[in-house]
Amino acid sequence: ELLQHTVHFLNAKSLQGQHWVVTAGPTVEAIDPVRYLANRSSGKMGYAIAEMASKAGAEVTLVSGPVSLDVPFGVNCFKVESAEAMLRKVQETLRDDSVFVACAAVADYKPKTVATEKMKKSGDEGLTIELSQNPDILKWVAGETSAFCVGFAAETQNVSDYAKSKMERKGITMICANDVSRDDIGFSCDHNELLVFYREQNITKEQRIGPASKVKVAEQLIELIHQVRPS
Amino acid sequence: ELLQHTVHFLNAKSLQGQHWVVTAGPTVEAIDPVRYLANRSSGKMGYAIAEMASKAGAEVTLVSGPVSLDVPFGVNCFKVESAEAMLRKVQETLRDDSVFVACAAVADYKPKTVATEKMKKSGDEGLTIELSQNPDILKWVAGETSAFCVGFAAETQNVSDYAKSKMERKGITMICANDVSRDDIGFSCDHNELLVFYREQNITKEQRIGPASKVKVAEQLIELIHQVRPS
Repeated sequence: ELLQHTVHFLNAKSLQGQHWVVTAGPTVEAIDPVRYLANRSSGKMGYAIAEMASKAGAEVTLVSGPVSLDVPFGVNCFKVESAEAMLRKVQETLRDDSVFVACAAVADYKPKTVATEKMKKSGDEGLTIELSQNPDILKWVAGETSAFCVGFAAETQNVSDYAKSKMERKGITMICANDVSRDDIGFSCDHNELLVFYREQNITKEQRIGPASKVKVAEQLIELIHQVRPS
Repeated sequence: ELLQHTVHFLNAKSLQGQHWVVTAGPTVEAIDPVRYLANRSSGKMGYAIAEMASKAGAEVTLVSGPVSLDVPFGVNCFKVESAEAMLRKVQETLRDDSVFVACAAVADYKPKTVATEKMKKSGDEGLTIELSQNPDILKWVAGETSAFCVGFAAETQNVSDYAKSKMERKGITMICANDVSRDDIGFSCDHNELLVFYREQNITKEQRIGPASKVKVAEQLIELIHQVRPS
């Protein structure tokens, strides 16, 4: 019944006139021309959200790290590598009335210096990489724009607690927690289960979506965003 | 003419009765359940070599890091993540009369410790990751077995010099250098150009293959290996 309802919601083009910016996939932080630091992320959840929001009538901009997925029909996609490049593209494309869905697994840290030539291994010794913090894209959007922000928290333990404290810290209204330590709904899976926390009239509410295919989860999340977002 | 010749070579099943082990793709070294360290590599060159060696009649084992490519028909493929797992699978599958083509972009370094839970960012501070050296798969095969070893050297500068010194250091007979700083033949490209160095009767010889599609380059490299390898 919920499924029937969602299909109706998508067909009714309920998001017509809205602009959505969705980030997806990992960011890749170069150490040198060959080596890099990254986060695990197939991009499937973000691409499904972009596709379904577009089907529901929204104008969708997808800002994607390196993944091997086809760009959904009708979606305007920008490919980026680093967190800094992702932030710049979000800043360029976001409008004050956009919905911002931060589904990308942005690297928190990047190497302090990037070698321009491939580093050579020397002897049997180890190596130390100094990292500095990347810009916080979601925090920037929440703080500097009036876009409606939806965050994601991929956690391996204390999933609910970490997600709720991330929602506070970033100053956002909605966060989707998923437990990536589980084999059935983790990285690269076609299925997902989200525990969504959101604030309405100063009350934190909780809604479970799935387990279901990432496309079905995307549909139901989009509908929930549409309900919760002040219009 | 060379192409015609190569097609004939493949059709003649010239590698019948041979066993080839090919490594391909990057290795991925976990920092925690979400973050990892890796090398850029699409796996296309290694997969093309595995496919073409199989077409030429060899029994082919492909040991592949995480890539998004289909396993070529007739090839026995094992998927691995870390350099250590790749080494173990090579040790399990290699025979003393195998041809070993080390096309994978194996990470030289791995984190000294792997966190079992996702590390949390704290404050605005940086982070230091201590790395130790990974096992050297090619050096192990060259030193501990009598397999015929073909190495790859992806370089961004002094390509020939680095490749030749790598051939010495690893104790192998043949090495394929490619310049990954070039846009036309670098990472993820469907085309490649190799500068192959090999030793025959204590003389180092040099042969350029390509630029051509990775499949064509694979065909010609396989034929060169077949010529150079003592039978």
